[in-house]
Amino acid sequence: MSKPNPTEVHTDFHRVVEARWLAKTKPPGSLGRIEQIAALMARIQRTDRPRAAPVSMLLFAGDHGVYEEAVSPYPQSVTVQMVENIASGGAASSVLAALHAIDYHVFDVGLLSAPAHHGRIVERNIRRGSRNFCREDAMTHEETLRAIAVGREAVTAIAHDASVIIVGEMGIANTTSAAAIVAALLGQPAIDWVGAGTGLDAAGVARKARAVNAALSRRTFASDLDALTALGGYEIAAMTGAYLEAAAKRKVILVDGFIATAALFVAARMEPSVLESCIFSHCSNERGHRALLGELCGQPLLDLGMRLGEGSGALIAYPLLVQSCELLENMATFTSAGVDERT
Amino acid sequence: MSKPNPTEVHTDFHRVVEARWLAKTKPPGSLGRIEQIAALMARIQRTDRPRAAPVSMLLFAGDHGVYEEAVSPYPQSVTVQMVENIASGGAASSVLAALHAIDYHVFDVGLLSAPAHHGRIVERNIRRGSRNFCREDAMTHEETLRAIAVGREAVTAIAHDASVIIVGEMGIANTTSAAAIVAALLGQPAIDWVGAGTGLDAAGVARKARAVNAALSRRTFASDLDALTALGGYEIAAMTGAYLEAAAKRKVILVDGFIATAALFVAARMEPSVLESCIFSHCSNERGHRALLGELCGQPLLDLGMRLGEGSGALIAYPLLVQSCELLENMATFTSAGVDERT
Repeated sequence: MSKPNPTEVHTDFHRVVEARWLAKTKPPGSLGRIEQIAALMARIQRTDRPRAAPVSMLLFAGDHGVYEEAVSPYPQSVTVQMVENIASGGAASSVLAALHAIDYHVFDVGLLSAPAHHGRIVERNIRRGSRNFCREDAMTHEETLRAIAVGREAVTAIAHDASVIIVGEMGIANTTSAAAIVAALLGQPAIDWVGAGTGLDAAGVARKARAVNAALSRRTFASDLDALTALGGYEIAAMTGAYLEAAAKRKVILVDGFIATAALFVAARMEPSVLESCIFSHCSNERGHRALLGELCGQPLLDLGMRLGEGSGALIAYPLLVQSCELLENMATFTSAGVDERT
Repeated sequence: MSKPNPTEVHTDFHRVVEARWLAKTKPPGSLGRIEQIAALMARIQRTDRPRAAPVSMLLFAGDHGVYEEAVSPYPQSVTVQMVENIASGGAASSVLAALHAIDYHVFDVGLLSAPAHHGRIVERNIRRGSRNFCREDAMTHEETLRAIAVGREAVTAIAHDASVIIVGEMGIANTTSAAAIVAALLGQPAIDWVGAGTGLDAAGVARKARAVNAALSRRTFASDLDALTALGGYEIAAMTGAYLEAAAKRKVILVDGFIATAALFVAARMEPSVLESCIFSHCSNERGHRALLGELCGQPLLDLGMRLGEGSGALIAYPLLVQSCELLENMATFTSAGVDERT
C-alpha cells in the first residue's frame, strides 16, 4: 500500500458539509439541491464554511467577422453600445449586479471600435473585431494565446479576493462562433448547435447553419486550440482563460449560458478538472445549450427560458448560492434548538 | 353589443409591462420567465410598477390525529418544537426570511400543546390537535369555519401592507391530511397523492396510503368544505382562508409546496379566481405535487428537489420576484442608452 502524498491529503469538505446538513432542524435531504450547492462550494473552496461572497463578474466583449454572413438581426454597433450600457448600469447584468452588490468589469478584447472611457471598462483590445471565419481564420494562434492570457490575468488582477466568479460575454454574432467551436470539437453537424441567438427567424437560423457548415467543411483541426483560433472569437478565448485561472485558484465558477458554456467546453478539453469548480446556473433557451450541458454532465439550477448572456443567467441564479451558505451557517441543529429527532 | 361595466374597466397592466420590457436593452423575450413574473405581478397589483416588497409570510401550525396511524417518522412533539424554532430564528424558513428581510408570524391554530410565548407566535388555537380522520371527522364544521376565519384575519390584521404574501405550514402528519383532501376532491385513489412526507420508507408510504384509502372509502362528501372538515387539519383550513383573503386584497401569492398547494386547491374550488393571484414558487419532491400543480395549471419557477414546507420553497424563489421588478424598474431603454435596435 502506497502512502498518500501529504500534499494531496486534505479534508473531504463535501462530506463535512453533508454531515453539517444532517444535524440541521429539517428532514435529511429536504432542501434538495440547495444542500448540494453548499457542499459543492465547500469542496471547491476547501472549507467547511463555504462563502458566497465576494463575487467578481468578468465580462469579455468582442466583435465577430462572421457578422458579414448576416447571422444576427442586430447592427454590429450594438456590441460597443451594450458594453457602455453594461458599464454605466443600464443593462440587465448591471442592474442584477447592483442588486446583489456584485463587483464587475467589462474587458474590451475585440471590439470593432473603442468604447468610451469608464472605470468598469478595461482596455485589453487585441484586434478591432475578429476575421470572418467563412473566409479565413478568425484569429491568429498568437492572438488566441493573448486572449487566453487576458482572461487569466483578469482573474489574478481583479478577482483575486473573489470566492465566486461569474464569466460572461457581449458580442454580436458570438453564438455563431460558439456553435462553430462546439460543433468542431465534437465533430458534429452545425445544425445541432446553431440557434436563434438574439432572435433570428427560421431563414436566419438556416443561413447561420450554412455559414458554420461551410466553414467547418473546408477545415480540419490539429488541436482544440486550433479550432478556437480558426472560429474565434477574442472574448470566447478570454473566457476560456478566465475559467482555467479561476479553477486553479479554487474559485467557485457560476457558469452562465450557451456562449459561456462553449468557452468552458474549450477550457475543460484543455484541463478537465476545471469542471470540478463549476456550478451551472441555468439552461438557456438557445438551441444547443441543453445538449452542451449534457456533454459536460452539468446540471443547471434554473430553467427559465432565458437567452440573454452578459452573465445574466448566472446573476439570476446567484441568490441560490447565498441562500445555501446562509442556511448552512445559521440554521439551528436538533440539539441546539431542542427539537426531537426521528424515531 | 353590451357596454362594459365601468367598474370593470381598468388598464391591462400585463400588457403595459410587456410593452415596457420591449423597450429595454435586450432582445425581446430574452429574460424568459423573469419577464413574465413582473407582468403577472403588475396584473395582480393593478399597477405598471409592480412591487416585490414588503412581503409577509404567514405560517399556520397544527397537529393531526391521524398521526396515530404511524404516518410520520418524527415524534409529534416536533410540531410545537419547530414552531418555537421558526419563531426564534433557527429553522430554514426563519433563516431565509431574515436573509430577505421578510416579516413573518406563526399561528398556533391546532397545536397539541401551547408553544412558549414569542412575539412571532400568534395564539389562535382552535383545538389541541385535530381528530384522527380514520376514526371520526378531523374537525367540526364550526371549527373549519373558525380556522378559515383565522387565516383571513391573519391577512387583514398582519399582512395588510404586504405586496406579496407567502402562506406556509408546520404540522407533523400534515402531508397525510393534504393527500387525503386532494384525493377526495378529485375522487382519485390515495396512492396517487400519498408520498414520503418527512422521509417515510416504502412500507411507511404504503401504510399511509392504506390509512387514507380506508378513511375515504367509508365517506362521501356533500361539499369541498365537508371534505376539508372531515380530513383536516386546522392549519390547512387556515391557509385556505389566507389565500382567499390575500387574493381578494390583490396581494401576489407566492405559493409554497405540496401542503400549501393542497390548501390552495381547496381555496380555488371555492373561488377559482384566487389562482389569478398566484405565482408557483417550486415543484416539490413530495409525490403528488407535480400532478397537483398540473391540476391548477401552475407552472413552478423552480424544481430543486425540495420538500421541507414551512414556506421554504417560496422563500427560495422569492429573489426571482425581486430581480424581475428591479430589472423592469432600472434597466435602460434602447432610447435612453443610445443602443441601436434590430434592423
